[in-house]
Amino acid sequence: MTLPFTVQAKAGSARQARIHTAHGDVETPAFMPVGTSGSVKAVPQDILEDLGAGGLGAQIILSNTYHLYLRPGHELVRNLGGLHKFMSWDRALLTDSGGFQVFSLSELRKVSEEGVSFRSHLDGTSHLFTPERSMEIQIALGADIVMAFDECTEHPAEKERTRQSMELTLRWAKRSKEYFEKHKDECSWGTSGDREIGGSGDRESEGSPEPPKLLEIAVIGGKNHSEQRPTTPALFGIVQGGMYADLRRESAERTIEIGFPGYAIGGLSVGESREKTMEMIAATLEILPKDKPRYVMGVGYPEEIVQYAAMGVDMMDCVLPTRAARHGLLFTSEGRMNIKNARYAQDQLPPDPKCNCRVCGRYTRAYLRHLFVSQEPLAAVLNTIHNLAFYLDTMRSVRHAIELGDLSGMLRGSVSLA
Amino acid sequence: MTLPFTVQAKAGSARQARIHTAHGDVETPAFMPVGTSGSVKAVPQDILEDLGAGGLGAQIILSNTYHLYLRPGHELVRNLGGLHKFMSWDRALLTDSGGFQVFSLSELRKVSEEGVSFRSHLDGTSHLFTPERSMEIQIALGADIVMAFDECTEHPAEKERTRQSMELTLRWAKRSKEYFEKHKDECSWGTSGDREIGGSGDRESEGSPEPPKLLEIAVIGGKNHSEQRPTTPALFGIVQGGMYADLRRESAERTIEIGFPGYAIGGLSVGESREKTMEMIAATLEILPKDKPRYVMGVGYPEEIVQYAAMGVDMMDCVLPTRAARHGLLFTSEGRMNIKNARYAQDQLPPDPKCNCRVCGRYTRAYLRHLFVSQEPLAAVLNTIHNLAFYLDTMRSVRHAIELGDLSGMLRGSVSLA
Repeated sequence: MTLPFTVQAKAGSARQARIHTAHGDVETPAFMPVGTSGSVKAVPQDILEDLGAGGLGAQIILSNTYHLYLRPGHELVRNLGGLHKFMSWDRALLTDSGGFQVFSLSELRKVSEEGVSFRSHLDGTSHLFTPERSMEIQIALGADIVMAFDECTEHPAEKERTRQSMELTLRWAKRSKEYFEKHKDECSWGTSGDREIGGSGDRESEGSPEPPKLLEIAVIGGKNHSEQRPTTPALFGIVQGGMYADLRRESAERTIEIGFPGYAIGGLSVGESREKTMEMIAATLEILPKDKPRYVMGVGYPEEIVQYAAMGVDMMDCVLPTRAARHGLLFTSEGRMNIKNARYAQDQLPPDPKCNCRVCGRYTRAYLRHLFVSQEPLAAVLNTIHNLAFYLDTMRSVRHAIELGDLSGMLRGSVSLA
Repeated sequence: MTLPFTVQAKAGSARQARIHTAHGDVETPAFMPVGTSGSVKAVPQDILEDLGAGGLGAQIILSNTYHLYLRPGHELVRNLGGLHKFMSWDRALLTDSGGFQVFSLSELRKVSEEGVSFRSHLDGTSHLFTPERSMEIQIALGADIVMAFDECTEHPAEKERTRQSMELTLRWAKRSKEYFEKHKDECSWGTSGDREIGGSGDRESEGSPEPPKLLEIAVIGGKNHSEQRPTTPALFGIVQGGMYADLRRESAERTIEIGFPGYAIGGLSVGESREKTMEMIAATLEILPKDKPRYVMGVGYPEEIVQYAAMGVDMMDCVLPTRAARHGLLFTSEGRMNIKNARYAQDQLPPDPKCNCRVCGRYTRAYLRHLFVSQEPLAAVLNTIHNLAFYLDTMRSVRHAIELGDLSGMLRGSVSLA
């Protein structure tokens, strides 16, 4: 496999594991902060590296192919040595395929067998994303984990339409893998990293260099895995199938047949009930292999990510903690807190008295409320730092509970997070 | 004196000194970052504490009485223990008098002998600032250094109008001092800090408690001065007099007669030429006592603050480094840099290769440009951190040059800062 994954402890269906990327280990279950345009909004990278209890920080963040493609452009990022170097982030990175973003453009996009044509939300220019193009862009960006190009089925959708969409995603998954396997060694940080990437016409990547030898061995244990680290990005497949459990299972089986070092469950959190989300995740997890990372895309609230981890999900991402922070919504051990509420005007408690983050260790609710109502830029900075620390601490607690073999306390406790 | 000030080295007219506040020492010449509403825009307090070379950080910041009075309100800040505690800033603080801000409201204000009536820029409500009211508000906020209420004369102004304005400022200075001396011990962090401030009707500050004994001794040397620290805020007088050197001298002489532990030069940077600014500063400095801090308000560009320090100015403040940062303008050892310029799109150098700040140590011009053109909130954070570090480092170099007895190199070098 191209991405060593070592399970270290289990509790029911949940597992505590470690993904060994070329840019450091990722302890799972992991929540991945979203850095849409190469920046987790309002938070400097050194603070991301130090977020949450124990100073582990964010070990992996996500960035969006669609946004980086439009601005500053993937060629520019490749010329500058890839996204890690561009944004000065030496830990693991994951890029989405752009599929979900162009799906969100709704009226500005058109889907065909070839791919999705769309208009930029920035300047209205026309663009085409195909599986091959998405791979090309993602390899140029050079994340550790890249995602197959998929169609996110709209919700609600009839079963026949959902099946057609699922079949398209499967065909695109094959095309994604084919292109990816041929070109993955062109990434800027691989063993062939001494090539002149983005230079003049003699780019070796245009020829057919010997691909670097892939590392096949997943080693059990927590020691230094640097010698087993991947030398290219890893491509994850994405399971679709809308809100139909049988289609989800079929999509999972056929995506596994194509074969990927990790699997995502996409097309959720598109307006369905939380029960339906859980049902779809459960149906898919039954099928997905237990020795590879399993990633649910675009979730969720703190209590949800605890539940999904308990079900056996290893990776999750969501804009919720960062976006909510910019709107003054804080997540705390006592529930959600709308910091602009007048009741906090003279409240000298920290946002969350049980939280050890640098915001809760220094500032009061009264001050954070003042910053927010005064539209001070520091409001977004501090609110985001707290929310991300809370999410990362939640996942840290989940991992600890799995090590102890019992997640039931977390699941009960998580109810109060809502 | 209520604010010990120890001169440690001299070079020509310039002096390197230390102001011993109740919240730590301030090395001068000092540039004070502006934290308008109780926040230096976009920068967390722990980063302010660590800004610039040597990790000295900002030792004093400024906050605006007008803004804090309107929101969150000085009574609220007093109830919460004062501005230091409210914003979690345990170092020195200075508040302006509100005079300059209401001056800036132009059409929304009306000046009388009593004070200035004005309408809030937030909601149009009517308010009156008098010398007594300004003192009351500033004592409630509880900065280490508070400023007399003055009228900032408009520019240009005829001599007779300027003289009348200067006379008004002098009468207001007396009223400011009278009110301040009676009430300065009501500040939340003084020796009478165990009183219940802002509590029920038995507030002792309404009676006439024995004022705490003021500290009269300025001690020469760099040792621990905690035993000589002030127990109340210190009130600075403000010299006005428009663009007339004789009025500036007269204003200085008569302000000194009233007697303050420090003197500011106000009413500059209102549209006059830089030569005129320097002429007014020079005329005033001739008169101001050499054993007390001298503060030029609202300046300036990096090369200007070096010049003023060379002339013998000890303190300066300006929104320029913070405001310019939010507009993408960086100050560097090579001059000003408009980071949104396309020429930086692929520039892998740090903003200022000679700067040791945490931004220049980690990020490239290409990345900062991307953040700015993408309107990422991190742009303001990083640009502001760099600009403030550059200003603080500039003042640090000035202090070092004074210690070495020669500022000529700094003054020549400062030309290239423009």
